Amino acid sequence: MHSYRFSPGPIHLLRIERDADLYQEISRFASEYGITAATVSFLGAVQCAALRYYDQETRRYHDFAIEHPLEVVSGVGNVTLLDGEPFLHIHAAFTDEFGRGHGGHVNAGTVVFAIEVTIQELEGDAPVRLPDLASGLSLWGPAAP
Amino acid sequence: MHSYRFSPGPIHLLRIERDADLYQEISRFASEYGITAATVSFLGAVQCAALRYYDQETRRYHDFAIEHPLEVVSGVGNVTLLDGEPFLHIHAAFTDEFGRGHGGHVNAGTVVFAIEVTIQELEGDAPVRLPDLASGLSLWGPAAP
Amino acid sequence: MHSYRFSPGPIHLLRIERDADLYQEISRFASEYGITAATVSFLGAVQCAALRYYDQETRRYHDFAIEHPLEVVSGVGNVTLLDGEPFLHIHAAFTDEFGRGHGGHVNAGTVVFAIEVTIQELEGDAPVRLPDLASGLSLWGPAAP
Repeated sequence: MHSYRFSPGPIHLLRIERDADLYQEISRFASEYGITAATVSFLGAVQCAALRYYDQETRRYHDFAIEHPLEVVSGVGNVTLLDGEPFLHIHAAFTDEFGRGHGGHVNAGTVVFAIEVTIQELEGDAPVRLPDLASGLSLWGPAAP
Repeated sequence: MHSYRFSPGPIHLLRIERDADLYQEISRFASEYGITAATVSFLGAVQCAALRYYDQETRRYHDFAIEHPLEVVSGVGNVTLLDGEPFLHIHAAFTDEFGRGHGGHVNAGTVVFAIEVTIQELEGDAPVRLPDLASGLSLWGPAAP
Repeated sequence: MHSYRFSPGPIHLLRIERDADLYQEISRFASEYGITAATVSFLGAVQCAALRYYDQETRRYHDFAIEHPLEVVSGVGNVTLLDGEPFLHIHAAFTDEFGRGHGGHVNAGTVVFAIEVTIQELEGDAPVRLPDLASGLSLWGPAAP
């Protein structure tokens, strides 16, 4: 296990407006405010969702879209560093008009209807994403203990 | 985008007891403690769920109920101000005895079996919900930047 | 309702590695660092999931497994005390390759592919889990108000 210790920094609430891109808006906020380490949660509704599922065998993302309105019932993620820049990683659970559950890794292309985000800044050395051979993903590199 | 900056305040854990109303109990706690800005998360189990799905076209809530016990696998939300009073907004992902996902906007009428809540108070100017023409919802009004 | 008030303590990010046990790794971290009160969230992917659904009538856990890879779209929980030791309670929403929602109470036996965890330590008197007659569960005992 790799672990990283922080002091709690400022907390931000964001309201993302209709027709904005969910992923890009949170990502842009982190970049503009120079946020290099944070945890993220969000809820609300989207007009459609652009999602990914990682195939653990082929080590490729399978991209798919849900082309109708959805409630965002629970979104979580974080901001850390990739190639020296703030990088946002978010997943979310969605539900449709019948109350059925959907979701995945949230990609650019998810169009907001109304979204409320909480960003908890983390004060300390930001974890850095590096290529991980065991998974094929970019994961946080060495730290304590 | 509208954004609001806070310092982290006290954090509360709540245990909500059997037969209580999930929405009303968290809401009552915020009112009694004078909490005007907070983020909320919760998990546990409910006896039944009273949920809503917002129809983005007709701009009306479609209310529905799930009339059997459910695990609450991830609930998220916030407290901000509406009409000068603390207002709770929560969504949740639920699962049934077959492990299938359900969920939506959580309404009064969701009956607790056992629920554990985390409330993170936010110190700073509480966002105020105002009518938003683009969505038909009450959303946070102007702030920085 | 039982409520417990804390000051925000240190926040940890954990990266749990491939083939580790999701429940046991977070639990072990809490024990090693002497964390007796915390809130937890996580996301990522697992190779399989060992889940539980609590039957509210018979008061028994029904254990079940999902024997294929899943995205973890939103995991939440907490650490408090049971029998004098840190005890981890986590639930999670998962999705499969078709984007369908699953989930439940997360048990030992859930095998990690890649998981990222946030642990927010709570400074104050840790809640203690005691047998609760109304539910048959171990729930937090008396505190204010």
